[in-house]
Amino acid sequence: MNLKRLMRSMRVATALAMTIALPALGASAAYAQPTQQAKQTQKEPASSGQTIAMQGTANGVPACISCHGANGEGNAAAGFPRLAGLGADYFAAQLAAFADGSRDNAVMQPFAKNMSADERKAVAQYFSSLPAPKGIRTQDPADVAPSDSGAWLATRGRWQQDLPACVQCHGPGGAGVGAIFPPLAGQPSAYIEAQLNAWKNGKRPPGTLALMPAVASKLSDADMHAVAQYYAQQAAAEASTAVAASQPASQPASQPASQTASQTASQPQAGTGAQAGQFQPPTESAMPGSDFGKSVKLGEQIFRHTGQYAGKFVGNSLSCANCHLDAGRKANSSPLWAAFVSYPAYRSKNGHVNTFAERLQGCFNYSMNGKAPPLGDPVLVALESYSYWLATGAPVGGKVAGRGYPKLPAPAQKADYARGAAVYTQHCVACHGADGQGKSSSGQTVFPPLWGARSFNWGAGMHEIQNAAGFIKANMPLGLGGTLTDQEAWDVATFMDSHERPQDPRFKGSVAQTRAKYHDTPHSLYGTEVNGHVLGSP
Amino acid sequence: MNLKRLMRSMRVATALAMTIALPALGASAAYAQPTQQAKQTQKEPASSGQTIAMQGTANGVPACISCHGANGEGNAAAGFPRLAGLGADYFAAQLAAFADGSRDNAVMQPFAKNMSADERKAVAQYFSSLPAPKGIRTQDPADVAPSDSGAWLATRGRWQQDLPACVQCHGPGGAGVGAIFPPLAGQPSAYIEAQLNAWKNGKRPPGTLALMPAVASKLSDADMHAVAQYYAQQAAAEASTAVAASQPASQPASQPASQTASQTASQPQAGTGAQAGQFQPPTESAMPGSDFGKSVKLGEQIFRHTGQYAGKFVGNSLSCANCHLDAGRKANSSPLWAAFVSYPAYRSKNGHVNTFAERLQGCFNYSMNGKAPPLGDPVLVALESYSYWLATGAPVGGKVAGRGYPKLPAPAQKADYARGAAVYTQHCVACHGADGQGKSSSGQTVFPPLWGARSFNWGAGMHEIQNAAGFIKANMPLGLGGTLTDQEAWDVATFMDSHERPQDPRFKGSVAQTRAKYHDTPHSLYGTEVNGHVLGSP
Repeated sequence: MNLKRLMRSMRVATALAMTIALPALGASAAYAQPTQQAKQTQKEPASSGQTIAMQGTANGVPACISCHGANGEGNAAAGFPRLAGLGADYFAAQLAAFADGSRDNAVMQPFAKNMSADERKAVAQYFSSLPAPKGIRTQDPADVAPSDSGAWLATRGRWQQDLPACVQCHGPGGAGVGAIFPPLAGQPSAYIEAQLNAWKNGKRPPGTLALMPAVASKLSDADMHAVAQYYAQQAAAEASTAVAASQPASQPASQPASQTASQTASQPQAGTGAQAGQFQPPTESAMPGSDFGKSVKLGEQIFRHTGQYAGKFVGNSLSCANCHLDAGRKANSSPLWAAFVSYPAYRSKNGHVNTFAERLQGCFNYSMNGKAPPLGDPVLVALESYSYWLATGAPVGGKVAGRGYPKLPAPAQKADYARGAAVYTQHCVACHGADGQGKSSSGQTVFPPLWGARSFNWGAGMHEIQNAAGFIKANMPLGLGGTLTDQEAWDVATFMDSHERPQDPRFKGSVAQTRAKYHDTPHSLYGTEVNGHVLGSP
Repeated sequence: MNLKRLMRSMRVATALAMTIALPALGASAAYAQPTQQAKQTQKEPASSGQTIAMQGTANGVPACISCHGANGEGNAAAGFPRLAGLGADYFAAQLAAFADGSRDNAVMQPFAKNMSADERKAVAQYFSSLPAPKGIRTQDPADVAPSDSGAWLATRGRWQQDLPACVQCHGPGGAGVGAIFPPLAGQPSAYIEAQLNAWKNGKRPPGTLALMPAVASKLSDADMHAVAQYYAQQAAAEASTAVAASQPASQPASQPASQTASQTASQPQAGTGAQAGQFQPPTESAMPGSDFGKSVKLGEQIFRHTGQYAGKFVGNSLSCANCHLDAGRKANSSPLWAAFVSYPAYRSKNGHVNTFAERLQGCFNYSMNGKAPPLGDPVLVALESYSYWLATGAPVGGKVAGRGYPKLPAPAQKADYARGAAVYTQHCVACHGADGQGKSSSGQTVFPPLWGARSFNWGAGMHEIQNAAGFIKANMPLGLGGTLTDQEAWDVATFMDSHERPQDPRFKGSVAQTRAKYHDTPHSLYGTEVNGHVLGSP
């Protein structure tokens, strides 16, 4: 960070703060005033927080707004992050990290050190109560051009390297999710880039699950620049984004001119870093623009946003892509290309030969806890088109490596609920929540609920422990697949599948009969007693 | 032929004939007496024929039954063919050929020469009126083991060499079809083998379309032996085939012990003689015996005998395999393996993306002039299973060589009905008949009707001239694909598609409107006037 520039900005900002009546009349229109409700919820410490923000402390801490803007909007030119709308816990934790030096920042360290824990909490609560910028754009990954590497990494990631999309944790548009995943939208490009570099170089604490160092290690300088530029543009002042903000989510946003510079960033190519000999579906840029291509694209949209595009067939908060990562492309995450070449096939689940279309119906009935589209419905046709296209070049009926979820060897110790709970707390709570209900942002599920009314039902494959264990081992935590031991995967799968969820739609009148008919396997806990409750019973 | 043996047999037979009252009390039970009706239809020449058969002529022609059995049943040990039930025209033509030496046979030539044309005709009519052996077995090709090479060649042929199955001309069980294709069932093995060798070595006139020399040239000695053994067993004396004859057609007949010798005959292998680089579907022996395999097999049965296995969806006398030769295996005959990897796809025919299942429905609606099975119907699932299995190893979405029918270059001369009629007379009438109605045997279509009420309708792809021309060029006459010139193929396709056939089920109230909506292409003659009739009009 350029210290001279920083000090100059601080002087200017301080001078400004002294002349601007509060709330600042000249604040960017994108940063609206705190709402009445937000004001009311500010308790004592919050008003103290506002004072610190506006005026600093007697202990030599300058007013936060000096650098971070009158409404906490940040300073793009200087690379100072916006503070408005950040989660209070996240914010306070950062101040604490500055204070104890675990987050290395020469400017912030003395200020943070000179604040008490209460003051840090107070100022965090104040800024968290300020509204985030309006006009955050969300982009459908299906509409992102492969050449736009910033948008691509942000919305799709680069799963050949197990690199999740930013939006998969930071929410649609990078608006932030819960207390742990801060907003990215509208953060200055220089700030985002600096943080990514800090994680890559060990200059910032690893944070939740040590995910960000893992992410940053997979990004080139060009990648970081591209994705930082992208998020800086995602919530610029309304004046400059009015057009983009008014576009519906499913329409491609016009590309800001400033992003042309990022076109030189490394392109996400199929095959990059992928396992040798692994089948590679076609690159997104190969998707035809023909009438058939339209069906393929619709299929991808349905697959990514199932509730939005096929709502009448969905009975929970999931999308296909929640279990089929990288929208059905990722090996060992039940990729669509491997599934397509494996049907028709006999399934013991229903005792007859299933076409691919009928197999898709099963997903709606069970994993989506919904009502299957009838055969021939455009939803099924589009999903079949998308799957077919992803399978381009795959050999029909072949044993394709990466199909389904990996089959783990039997666990060394019998899988255990209590050990699973501990694994869950350590590795899963951050995203899926202590209650397993996941998290959403802007009305969209970011982290899917793992049990309960909004999750898959007792007929879904994922309720069987060996499926869940295989999926978890290969893919969880997101972007950190393969980091859990087999035992941990078995244990946490057992924990997850020991919770209640919607009834099996094939229910036979009693749980015992339903278990006997459909779940008579040690891999299903349906109908068994866990913690005094018979799973599947009311 | 062993002349000494022949003369010995003749002496014995003649001696026997003198002592056996007619009708012969000791005749094999398999050869029933002429029916009353058959007797009544015998006009004057027939009674003369009977006399010749029983007693010979004053001109030195011995009684036919001396060698060929009291009821014309032949003599298996001596290799003398059965005469009972042969077509009269075929029979008379053979006697004429013996007489003029074009069919080389030292024994028959002097006898035939000493008969007048009327006598030959009379004796032919007499034997044609005698009943063919009872208990001719028909075998479903889907039930034939690949190791049983005689049955395989007889019921499936070897299409990698463009070698049709015997049954495709000689009818189910080799019972014979019409005047041109004589029965094979129950003919002595030595006789069949000798005839095949005669064609192969140019010792017998080429006959209809010169097809048999082409067939025989593709058979090894072992092949000939195996197929001859097979047909000799197909209608043996009832006493020895009672079990086999009582088996339903769809059950595999127990293999006669004598056929074990033929197991050394060359095996029909996928790839034999096939075009280099051509995709090869799996061999029949690779068909799994699993539950899935059962669906595959049912699909093959439906494909081969569509009216029998999917009758309620069929409105004409065709089977899928009539246009998709070798039951969907043959390249350039719209093979199923190429079709399977090409769907879903957008079709301008109906203006949307069609799954493979919907594409199959189209065949029922148009080519089969029926009513499509609903999506998910076991008939469609089985056909999809069979297609999927045939496509094993084919790359999804690839441009597979041999897909569909070949696209012929535009004809040098404008395709012409009259020239087409001449081509038809020369190359097609023998099988499809002058009326285009094909021929059947034992209630099964052997040669499909090409137009009229029992053929495909005006919505079928085959009614478009370029499709028909491509199919004909590559595949017609059966086993002689590629022998017509492009011009002949265009002309005869035009002739075929200039005939009336069932209405397009999408009929729009008037022929003109229907043509405007669906057939506005020079390749369709629907709605155009041919020989004073507007095609498609009542």
